[in-house]
Amino acid sequence: MIDQNTRFLIVGLGLIGGSYAMGLKKKGYHVDAIDIQEESISYALQNNLIDHGSTYDTALIQQADIIISALYPKAMVTWIKNNQKHMKPHAFISDVSGVKSGIVEEIQNFLRDDLHFCASHPMAGKEVSGVQNADDTIFHSANFIITPTAKNTQQDISCLKDLAHILEFSHISILTLEEHDTMIGFLSQLTHVIAVSLMNTNDNTHLVDYTGDSFRDLTRIAKINENMWSELFFLNKDILIQEIDSFMKEVENLKTKLVEHDEEGLKTLFRQSTKRRKLFDR
Amino acid sequence: MIDQNTRFLIVGLGLIGGSYAMGLKKKGYHVDAIDIQEESISYALQNNLIDHGSTYDTALIQQADIIISALYPKAMVTWIKNNQKHMKPHAFISDVSGVKSGIVEEIQNFLRDDLHFCASHPMAGKEVSGVQNADDTIFHSANFIITPTAKNTQQDISCLKDLAHILEFSHISILTLEEHDTMIGFLSQLTHVIAVSLMNTNDNTHLVDYTGDSFRDLTRIAKINENMWSELFFLNKDILIQEIDSFMKEVENLKTKLVEHDEEGLKTLFRQSTKRRKLFDR
Repeated sequence: MIDQNTRFLIVGLGLIGGSYAMGLKKKGYHVDAIDIQEESISYALQNNLIDHGSTYDTALIQQADIIISALYPKAMVTWIKNNQKHMKPHAFISDVSGVKSGIVEEIQNFLRDDLHFCASHPMAGKEVSGVQNADDTIFHSANFIITPTAKNTQQDISCLKDLAHILEFSHISILTLEEHDTMIGFLSQLTHVIAVSLMNTNDNTHLVDYTGDSFRDLTRIAKINENMWSELFFLNKDILIQEIDSFMKEVENLKTKLVEHDEEGLKTLFRQSTKRRKLFDR
Repeated sequence: MIDQNTRFLIVGLGLIGGSYAMGLKKKGYHVDAIDIQEESISYALQNNLIDHGSTYDTALIQQADIIISALYPKAMVTWIKNNQKHMKPHAFISDVSGVKSGIVEEIQNFLRDDLHFCASHPMAGKEVSGVQNADDTIFHSANFIITPTAKNTQQDISCLKDLAHILEFSHISILTLEEHDTMIGFLSQLTHVIAVSLMNTNDNTHLVDYTGDSFRDLTRIAKINENMWSELFFLNKDILIQEIDSFMKEVENLKTKLVEHDEEGLKTLFRQSTKRRKLFDR
């Protein structure tokens, strides 16, 4: 479905949008981009990440075979709603959003019948943002998750698999919207809750000189883009609250072993975590 | 106080004891060792980490100018109590224990008047144990903490500073026993509680394929030596329970922002953690 004549349009030239553009251009595809920031477009043009770009140009939308929204989820909904009228018949749209439920159904409900939207999530990132930090190699060791619904076809899934191969993702998974959001709630959002909360526990800044690698590793993700993550948290609120509750129950459980001086109980928890964590070693 | 004639005795040839031996031998010092495991002694001799070693030899104790206990804290108390009668007058003793209060006062209370014990803590480690993994370079980017009491002299502190320089620690700090244990309770023990509890939250092993770097970083220390860490946790129980409570209060606080859909409150927490974490960047 993707061939050398396929024209891509990236909407939103941030870190991820820019990295998609970079990876696609390297493979010889035609890539256009729309971004509200003039300087992001200029940077992308100067660095050969895109063929054409504009802060807004309906011609670029009309010409696109595949449109990738790399906007925040809510901004994406609005943008597709407002701009689907410019899209060519049978254009294919996907995204990069970190939360799927709610967003995907809403788009599929208002989408023109002759357009195709199938959601996907590149599980890659950096602690820095912006097209200036674009780097398509972040995808090479990452998972690409496709989250089709009943409205999607095998062709939609194949198209996204092609995209994942072009961008050299190391692993492709297919999950339902709910499976995706539950997995993300635990692996990604809960870990950010923990890092942020640990960093906010006490004023610990006088401890900088004593800090070893384990504290640094645990709090690395406490440097967090507040606008993106608050949007993602609220979109996945119910699942995230459940995950927080499960985690707190487990911390409470460990605390009880300490309070009751239950040495064997504590060691059992340590043995379980050790055994499980070993499965996650690469 | 330490010169080229100084004879060191390492008691307990595990990862840290072995790494001390390695670092001291590289600088040309005479290093002996005692360990209950014959194979640890053989390994250390074969690999030139020590000059002499034995599973138990009072002559090695008698000859030592500086004795470093690299035993677990409780085993150290017993060992020093049983063996101080063999030590030469004015021998200097230190340790590597991760918890100080209780242990240090106990030793200083029963110690012969002509012996010197000043506690210290090399804040370095690895996820593997045993003398076979000894590596003195783990100290080169690490902090060396000296925890003197009113019973210690400036000479004791100078001796430990010399030791830290010989082993090439990057930073030396002096803390009271309580300051040390509070710092360790937060930076080291609480982080292990979090990693273990996160790993034990749900049976998450089916998520291996989706796991990114942030989850791996956060749970790396969930692989944990159950005997050492349960001893350290119980020795620092009161402080650790306080730290757990402070952390859980902070998680609860973030959860409340979610439940109440307090977007500005959530962003404020994100901004605080981001600002604080930046101070910890190297």
